[in-house]
Order: sequence, then C-alpha cells, then structure tokens
Amino acid sequence: MTLFITVEGPEGSGKTTVIEGVMARLSQSYDVIQTREPGGVHTAEKIRQILLDGSDMDARTEALLFAAARREHLVEKVLPALNEGKIVLCDRFIDSSLAYQGYARQIGMAEVRAINAFAIEGRYPDLTLYLDVPAEVGRQRILANQRAQNRLDKEDIAFHERVIEGYHKLIQNNSERITVIDATESIEKVIDNAVKVIEDKLQHEL
Amino acid sequence: MTLFITVEGPEGSGKTTVIEGVMARLSQSYDVIQTREPGGVHTAEKIRQILLDGSDMDARTEALLFAAARREHLVEKVLPALNEGKIVLCDRFIDSSLAYQGYARQIGMAEVRAINAFAIEGRYPDLTLYLDVPAEVGRQRILANQRAQNRLDKEDIAFHERVIEGYHKLIQNNSERITVIDATESIEKVIDNAVKVIEDKLQHEL
Repeated sequence: MTLFITVEGPEGSGKTTVIEGVMARLSQSYDVIQTREPGGVHTAEKIRQILLDGSDMDARTEALLFAAARREHLVEKVLPALNEGKIVLCDRFIDSSLAYQGYARQIGMAEVRAINAFAIEGRYPDLTLYLDVPAEVGRQRILANQRAQNRLDKEDIAFHERVIEGYHKLIQNNSERITVIDATESIEKVIDNAVKVIEDKLQHEL
Repeated sequence: MTLFITVEGPEGSGKTTVIEGVMARLSQSYDVIQTREPGGVHTAEKIRQILLDGSDMDARTEALLFAAARREHLVEKVLPALNEGKIVLCDRFIDSSLAYQGYARQIGMAEVRAINAFAIEGRYPDLTLYLDVPAEVGRQRILANQRAQNRLDKEDIAFHERVIEGYHKLIQNNSERITVIDATESIEKVIDNAVKVIEDKLQHEL
C-alpha cells in the first residue's frame, strides 16, 4: 500500500497543523512517513543553507537550487520509502515552486515546470491535497499567527494573492491529481476530509 | 566592442594554456576579462563547494547545481562586464554541461539543455572556440601531465571519448556559433588561430 501524497497551500492555510493531524490518523492503520524538503538529506540540507543564508540571489538561481534540493530529497528519501511500500506524506513539492516562483515571482510557470520536470523525472505525486482558503482568510490567519511578523505590507499581500492565483491555475490544469479541501472549516473537519480523500484514493489503488 | 566568447574542449586539449595566451594577446588591444565559473561570485562559490565536497550525489542534482552556479555567474559577472562594453573570455560554459553531463554521463543532451536554457535565458555565447584533439592525443597529454593522476583506467578513457563525441555532436548542430580549432598544432599556432578567429568576429561585429 504505497502512495506519494503532497500537501499544498498558501501561508495561512493551516497546512502544518493539518499534516500533523492527518499523520496521526493515517499512522494508526498504515506504514506512513511524513517529510518535507530538504528532509535531512545531506546534499539537500547544504543546498537549503545557501537558500537561507540571506545573500541576494537571482530568482532563477533560487529556482534551480530548489529543484536541486527537490531532486536529492526525492531520490534519497521519498523514492526509497515508496519502494519499501510506505505511504509518503510530503509538505510541499513541485506545485509550491510553480505557484511561488513560477507564478507569484513571475519567472513563468512553464519555465519553472521545465526544470522541475528534469528534477522529478515524471515522479509527480499520486495525490495532492490543496488546502483552500480565500486570500482574506489567509491574511487574517497570518496576522493572528504569533510566529509571523505582526504586519503585512502591500507587497506581501499582493504576493500572497498571486500565490493563491497560481495555485488555482494549477488546480484547473491538474484536476485529476489535485484535490481541493475547504480549509476554512474547523481543523477537525479539514483533517477528517483530508483523511477521507486519502483513504478513497488508497481504496481505488487496491 | 563587446563579445561573449567561451572556450571549450576535453581534458588534454590545452585549454588553460591557450586561454592564457589568447588573454595576453587580446588585452593589448581590447578591454577584456577572463573568467570561469564560479568566478568568485558569492552564491556560485557556495554552490561549487557543495559540488566539490565529495558526497555522493545524483547526476541530475549535480546538473541542476552546475546550472544554478552558471546562472549566478552569468548574472553577477558576465552580463555586467558585457554591459560595460567589455569582451568576456570564459573558460567553459553551457557546452561543457551538454558534453559532460548530458552526453558522457548520459542524462541526455536535450534534458540538460532544458535546465541550462532556463539558466542562461537565451544568452548563448557570441562565439565558442572548440579546441579539437583526437581522443588518443588527449589521452597522451593527460598521461604526460604531471598534475594529473599517472594512470587512466578503462572507465576514464571511455568517459573521455564520450565527452569528445558529445562535443562533436554540438559542433554539428551549432556550426554558426562554434568554431573548431585544431589543437594538435604547436601552442603558438593554436593561440594565433584562436586570436585570428576572435578578431575576425570582432571585425564582423563592427
């Protein structure tokens, strides 16, 4: 029973909490691992350090580095787990690069898809859960989130809205792979719905 | 008088010596800089450290990292110099990735070209000099080179030959950009010929 699941959504979609809840539920019945890039993979962690070191960097360089870290995490961690028959629950994957870098940073989705297609070599997720929140709800949640900065400037808000627009384009064009989950509902309900979608998919795969 | 020139060739083609000689000659008449990736560019140097740190790494991860370092070196060093009206003489560029990683490491030239096209965004060299040596001559030079290891195993030789095959495919398909220079001649003659090709191109650009 193997399945490669990714979870996507903009800031304020509650992604982290939902993944924790889904993981707790799934692991009662299945052999499942939870991961996110760079996932403790040596070379991917080193690439991540460059991305985080705060130097000015060209947007395309950044996109290539994300793709490189993605490749190594996929090859070193995700694929081996799938080959051992596990379910892999991954926090963000190719769609994040397409929405954030391709669309919101305006490199172009087709261009960012090309380098990520090279990185994942056809290994798209079997199922992607998109946690859907209107831009306004996401913004309110970010503001309420004590971990986040306590103000959002105009550019942040415009960027946040472009990320959501980018995701919506991806959903339109990948409706077989991406399932939209209404993330404005209570966290319990969102987790319930996410688990239900995954279990339906697992039944379908049997 | 600006021109983006790259110099390519397999090991044993005498590339380093030829570039030094060409640089010495050109700089008498032109404002020219000599560079090679990562070229002292902060982020590109950090990427290079990952490539050199000796960890096992997937071939596609490696190709993405080379493309990322290429992008940053191009944007931070090559393009600014060209914009200041300089001639840039660059030791290896996109063709090296195509010949070494795409062809010799068998990732596929079209695939490696895709990520490099993303990295260079159409900024192909104006002129590429290919230092042509038969595989056997190159091998003898590598063996004679005290800096190199004093033996070559079968795999090294096969790889060396595949690199040359890869370059020859590139030459066939990019005959307008790539000029082949016979690198079996004396070093003085090779430098003379290289300078002549560059000056012809500069005349043509006037």
